[in-house]
Amino acid sequence: MKIAIYGYGNLGRGVEAAMRQNPDCELIGVFSRRDPSAVKTRTGIPVYPAADILNYKEQIDVLILCGGSATDLPELTPALAKDFCVVDSFDTHANIPTHFGRVDAAAREGRTLCLISAGWDPGMFSIARVYAQAILPEGQDYTFWGRGVSQGHSDAIRRIPGVLDARQYTVPVPEALDAVGRGENPTLTTRDKHTRECYVVAAEGADKAAIEEAIVTMPNYFADYNTTVTFITAEEMQEHHMGLPHGGRVIRNGVTGLEGEHTHTVSYSLRLDSNPEFTASAILAFARAVYRMKQRGRRGCLTVLDVAPADLSPLSAEELRAHML
Amino acid sequence: MKIAIYGYGNLGRGVEAAMRQNPDCELIGVFSRRDPSAVKTRTGIPVYPAADILNYKEQIDVLILCGGSATDLPELTPALAKDFCVVDSFDTHANIPTHFGRVDAAAREGRTLCLISAGWDPGMFSIARVYAQAILPEGQDYTFWGRGVSQGHSDAIRRIPGVLDARQYTVPVPEALDAVGRGENPTLTTRDKHTRECYVVAAEGADKAAIEEAIVTMPNYFADYNTTVTFITAEEMQEHHMGLPHGGRVIRNGVTGLEGEHTHTVSYSLRLDSNPEFTASAILAFARAVYRMKQRGRRGCLTVLDVAPADLSPLSAEELRAHML
Repeated sequence: MKIAIYGYGNLGRGVEAAMRQNPDCELIGVFSRRDPSAVKTRTGIPVYPAADILNYKEQIDVLILCGGSATDLPELTPALAKDFCVVDSFDTHANIPTHFGRVDAAAREGRTLCLISAGWDPGMFSIARVYAQAILPEGQDYTFWGRGVSQGHSDAIRRIPGVLDARQYTVPVPEALDAVGRGENPTLTTRDKHTRECYVVAAEGADKAAIEEAIVTMPNYFADYNTTVTFITAEEMQEHHMGLPHGGRVIRNGVTGLEGEHTHTVSYSLRLDSNPEFTASAILAFARAVYRMKQRGRRGCLTVLDVAPADLSPLSAEELRAHML
Repeated sequence: MKIAIYGYGNLGRGVEAAMRQNPDCELIGVFSRRDPSAVKTRTGIPVYPAADILNYKEQIDVLILCGGSATDLPELTPALAKDFCVVDSFDTHANIPTHFGRVDAAAREGRTLCLISAGWDPGMFSIARVYAQAILPEGQDYTFWGRGVSQGHSDAIRRIPGVLDARQYTVPVPEALDAVGRGENPTLTTRDKHTRECYVVAAEGADKAAIEEAIVTMPNYFADYNTTVTFITAEEMQEHHMGLPHGGRVIRNGVTGLEGEHTHTVSYSLRLDSNPEFTASAILAFARAVYRMKQRGRRGCLTVLDVAPADLSPLSAEELRAHML
């Protein structure tokens, strides 16, 4: 299975790193919109100009798009789907149906097979919800995120005057998590479910009280949460906050029995040292499934919900039955 | 989707109860090898003699076999697979490849579609392992069971002279569970992972010390575990130990990065008030998938690993994309 990466940020580097764990995959190159001579890959994989990608059409089984969901993927995935089997990690939940429609139309026109929104949320969390709801139709879903870095919230803090750098951690409230995990179905407000921890490097002489006030009252991002702000030095930021950990938990509490007399808790949780590397590893597994399903004649656009677990695994059907069931 | 149940024990009753939560399913009847007039269903569903089942072939879309894995299913599933789309919960892990081969041959001959080993272990736990291994090829798997009733271990105690009744709970060792959940990869012996709690009703005048010794030294069942034995009255058994709770947790700790420098923990856990009702609910979801995949032309035998999550859900593909991703 010949893989190409389009876009070489954190996610692209994660896919590159994941290749060494998947011997059935071969990375043929990275395509970048930057000047290729300015891009140095971690494993020495060649970098080609994104504009030349059609020249490599015959050499690429699956193209992994490592761009952002805000502006890159809505344009790039449909544009490339006509010529390539594209897998992306489009994560703007509300726009998935529109994105799907555009990619599906392009893929059907080009007779390719694409898959959108791979990763963990959307992705593995979506899968966990669908399984649990299908088995327990009467019940309630809960999703907790963190402890992990939210890039969007970190960026929002960085835009406040006087802020040099910032890192925001989303943290589930332990009491809420425990109550749901015990099978209770509490009604939880936004504030009940998560707190937000902010670590901020302020410019010399900046008004820290004003910065803190600007953060905790920021609509949508912080106003509805219990938010803590801690001012740290640039050195402390460098030493303690350069990772991109994340994770979370999807829980469904449901009932069975003629009278709903038995309760059940299904829980799927992730604790990730590196959000982009785990996402990249998930994408690569779904790229394997796309490659196989295309060989079986499938065309159009898929999501993670359309893929059987067996198609993600490098093991054969016989091996899976003998060792994994 | 017209469903029939074959065998009316705990599992069959669980499928019957699950019908009321799945309005796209219609239960046409229960087939029993007992005298139908002696079987009273909980919801008044008719009971037919198992010997007459071929007369109902045209009325049954999916037949759910609710028999035991030791002697019933190895014979029944292949025998019925030629004429019916059968779903079973065969759970003798080591014999799954043989069982699969026999059911697959019968289903291909009869042009049906069957699915074996639905439930949670094998079943949802198998699915959790395959997803986690596919995403994190370098890592270690752990499975913990309980706290829950083991029927096989309870039966083993009941066979000891002087024992009137017994219930055995399998309990994960909290320290082991916590260490694995933190991302550590401890080497765990059988004794390190689970303890066994036994509640025993002894006959009047029975030698309780001898019973306890017989339990804790029993090879395979208890000798390799830290086992506690508590003698209780028949009334206490009736009051506190008549449920069939179970559950467990599948954990994979894996690494990513060029040097394996980032660790990740993926965890899937179940806490079940009623093991047979949850298993029945899972079986019914997989019956829905079998019905749909048969309509799309699939034939032969499947396992849970061959089914895409979307096929388990009563929601349409559009609804899933709009609300579940």
